[in-house]
Amino acid sequence: MTEKFAFHLKKADGRARLGEIETPRGVIRTPAFMPVGTVGTVKALYPEQVREAGADIILGNTYHLMLRPGAERVAKLGGLHKFMRWDGPILTDSGGFQVMSLGKIRKITEEGVTFQSHIDGSRHMLSPERSIEIQCLLGADIQMQFDECIELPAERREVERAMELSLRWAERSKRAFEAQLLAGGAKPGQALFAIVQGGTDAELRRRSAEVLVAMDFPGYAVGGLAVGEGHDAMIATLGEALPVLPENKPRYLMGVGTPLDLIESVRLGVDMFDCVMPTRNGRHGYAFTWNGPLNMRNAKHAEDMSPLDELSRCPAARDYSKAYIHHLIRSGEYLGAMILSWVNTVFYQDLMAAMREAIAEGRFDDWAAATKAAITAPPAAP
Amino acid sequence: MTEKFAFHLKKADGRARLGEIETPRGVIRTPAFMPVGTVGTVKALYPEQVREAGADIILGNTYHLMLRPGAERVAKLGGLHKFMRWDGPILTDSGGFQVMSLGKIRKITEEGVTFQSHIDGSRHMLSPERSIEIQCLLGADIQMQFDECIELPAERREVERAMELSLRWAERSKRAFEAQLLAGGAKPGQALFAIVQGGTDAELRRRSAEVLVAMDFPGYAVGGLAVGEGHDAMIATLGEALPVLPENKPRYLMGVGTPLDLIESVRLGVDMFDCVMPTRNGRHGYAFTWNGPLNMRNAKHAEDMSPLDELSRCPAARDYSKAYIHHLIRSGEYLGAMILSWVNTVFYQDLMAAMREAIAEGRFDDWAAATKAAITAPPAAP
Repeated sequence: MTEKFAFHLKKADGRARLGEIETPRGVIRTPAFMPVGTVGTVKALYPEQVREAGADIILGNTYHLMLRPGAERVAKLGGLHKFMRWDGPILTDSGGFQVMSLGKIRKITEEGVTFQSHIDGSRHMLSPERSIEIQCLLGADIQMQFDECIELPAERREVERAMELSLRWAERSKRAFEAQLLAGGAKPGQALFAIVQGGTDAELRRRSAEVLVAMDFPGYAVGGLAVGEGHDAMIATLGEALPVLPENKPRYLMGVGTPLDLIESVRLGVDMFDCVMPTRNGRHGYAFTWNGPLNMRNAKHAEDMSPLDELSRCPAARDYSKAYIHHLIRSGEYLGAMILSWVNTVFYQDLMAAMREAIAEGRFDDWAAATKAAITAPPAAP
Repeated sequence: MTEKFAFHLKKADGRARLGEIETPRGVIRTPAFMPVGTVGTVKALYPEQVREAGADIILGNTYHLMLRPGAERVAKLGGLHKFMRWDGPILTDSGGFQVMSLGKIRKITEEGVTFQSHIDGSRHMLSPERSIEIQCLLGADIQMQFDECIELPAERREVERAMELSLRWAERSKRAFEAQLLAGGAKPGQALFAIVQGGTDAELRRRSAEVLVAMDFPGYAVGGLAVGEGHDAMIATLGEALPVLPENKPRYLMGVGTPLDLIESVRLGVDMFDCVMPTRNGRHGYAFTWNGPLNMRNAKHAEDMSPLDELSRCPAARDYSKAYIHHLIRSGEYLGAMILSWVNTVFYQDLMAAMREAIAEGRFDDWAAATKAAITAPPAAP
C-alpha cells in the first residue's frame, strides 16, 4: 500500500476538474461527496450501504467524537476506522465549526476555545494543537486546520478578525501536524488541509487564500460558507477564492450542499464536498430524485404505489412504494429514515459520478444545464 | 399454490410439539415466533432481514393499521403483504388488546368498543364484525377473533364477565368471517383463530377453552397473559388451558415473551408466539445472546472490542464490537437500534429453530435444561 498522499488532476472541462486523491487507504475519485458520519455512523445506514453507494471517503466530526466516545478511547480501541468499520479514507473536521454552533462557548482567545459539552455540560478546550492531536488519535487520513467560523452576516471587522486568527491557527495547526508526523502520532500519507475564511468579502477571501497558499498545504478548503449567506453569495465568494488556490491541490467546499450547490461549485473547480443533507433531509421525509426532490410527508403520495425511482441503483428506491414510505415517515418509523437516507446517499453519489463522467467527456456545461432543469433546489428540512 | 389451511403435527416430545402450518402463502414451521410488524414494519429492520432471520410469518396490529394508514386504504393499495413487502403469511390481532391499552376508551358494550385514536383523537368503533372486516381488508392469512382483554390482577367477577363477552364475540367473529368467505372478503386458506380468556383462573380458562373448542376453530390462542401476572402464574394458567385444546390444531400464546417464557411454553405444548421484545428491547439497548442478555448501555462494554457473538448467523452480531454498539446506544443513534433489533430477531428465530431441532430429536428436556442455564431472563426494558 502506498504511503503517500497525492492529488492527480486528470482532466479539466472549463474550470470543472476530474481527479483522484491517492491515500494509503484508497483512492478518492473527485469531484467527491463525503457522507457525514457525525459520531462514528452515517445516520440510519449500515457502513456497507455507504460503501456500496459509491462513497470513497466519509467525514467524522471531531467535536462530537471528542465528547463521545472520546478521542483517547477511540485511539485505545484501534482508531476510528476500526471502531466504525470503515476501511476507506476518513476526513475529520477540526471541531471549529461545531464547537461554535453546538457547544456553549466559554471563551475564545488567541490560544483556543474553551467550551461546555452540549451533552453533559462538561468543560473542554480546543486549540490548534489539541484539534490536531484529536484528529491524529482518531486516525484521520485528511485532517483540517483549527479555525474560527463565524455566523453570517457579520461586520467586516469581525470577519477580518476571525480570518486573521484562523490564519495564525493554520500556522500552528501545521506545526502541530508536522510534530505529530515526527512523533508518530500522524502517519505517512495523512494530510492536513487549510481552510480559507473571510465571509463573503472578496478581498478578505483572497488575502486568506494567498497567505495559506504561501504556507503550502496539500489541500485547501473553503470554509464558513452555507451559513446563511444564500446560494448566489456563496457562488460569488467561491469565484473569488478558488482562482487563488493552486491547480495541483484538491479544493474542498465545507458543509455544502444542495444538488444545485454541488453542480455550480464543481463548475467553478471544487473537488470535494460534505453535507448532512442527504441523511438529515431523509430522516425528515425528503427524497432526492432525478426528477427533483419529493416531500414524502405530502398527502399526494399516500396512495401512490409507484417507487421513488425504478431505474435507481438503490434497491430502496426501486422496491418500496411512495405510499409505503409516506406511511412510514408519517408514522415516525425507523424504516422510513433508513429507506430515505439510503436513497439520498446513493443519489448524491450518483450525482457526483455523473459529474465526473460529464467532465471526462468534456460536456459538463451541457450536462449541468440539462440536470439543473430536472433537479430543482430541495425544500428546506423542517 | 395450495388454497388450504392445515396443521400437521409431525412429532411430540413430552408435551412439546413439532409441526407445520400450511397456508397458501407458505409453510410456518412450529414452534414459531412471529416478529411484530406493528404498523406495517418490524421496527428498525428491512423486510429482507426479517425473512433471512428465519421468520416464516409476521404479525400486524389491526388497531395501529386501522388508524394509519387505514384498512380501506391498505386494501385499495393491494393489501398489507404488498404494502409492506412481505410475501409470507401474516397474522393480525383483532385490535382488542391494543384498543384497551392504547386507545382512549369511550364505551364497551355488547356491540363492541368505541374509542378515540391515540394519534389524533379521532373516534372509531371496533366490534367483532368490524375487526374481521378490517383483517380481511388487510388480507391477513391468520385472523383473530375480537376479544376483551383486561388487565390483571382483576376481580374474578370482572374476569368472568370479560371472558363470557369474549365467547359471544368469538361466535360473532366466526359468523362474520364465514360471511366474508362467502362474499369473497376472506380468501380460501385464510383462517380465524379463537382466543381463550379467563385471567389466571383455572376454572374460567377451562370453561373458555371448552366453549371455543365446541365452536371448532382452525386454531386457538391463549390471550390475556403476560399482562402483569408473572412467569409462574402464566405457566400455571397455560398448564390448565392447553390440555383442553385439541391436539390437531395450532396453539398460539399471544404477546409472549422472554426466552425463558418461550422455552417453558413450548414444553407445555404451545406452537406459536409473538412479542415486541426482540425489537423493543433492542431499541432500548438490550442484546439477547446464547450467554444471556446484555445491557449494552452498561459502562463495562465501553472498551470491549469483542463482538456480541462471533458464531451467530447474524452479521451484526459478528461484525460490530460491543464498544461500538455501546457508543451507538449511548448516543441514541439509529444504527444502534438497527443492529440490536437485527441481532435479537435472529436470536429469537434461532431459539425457535433450536427448539424444533431438539423436539425432532426427542431431547427437548435436556436441551431446555442446558439452554435455560445459559440464557437467563432479560432485564426489563426501561
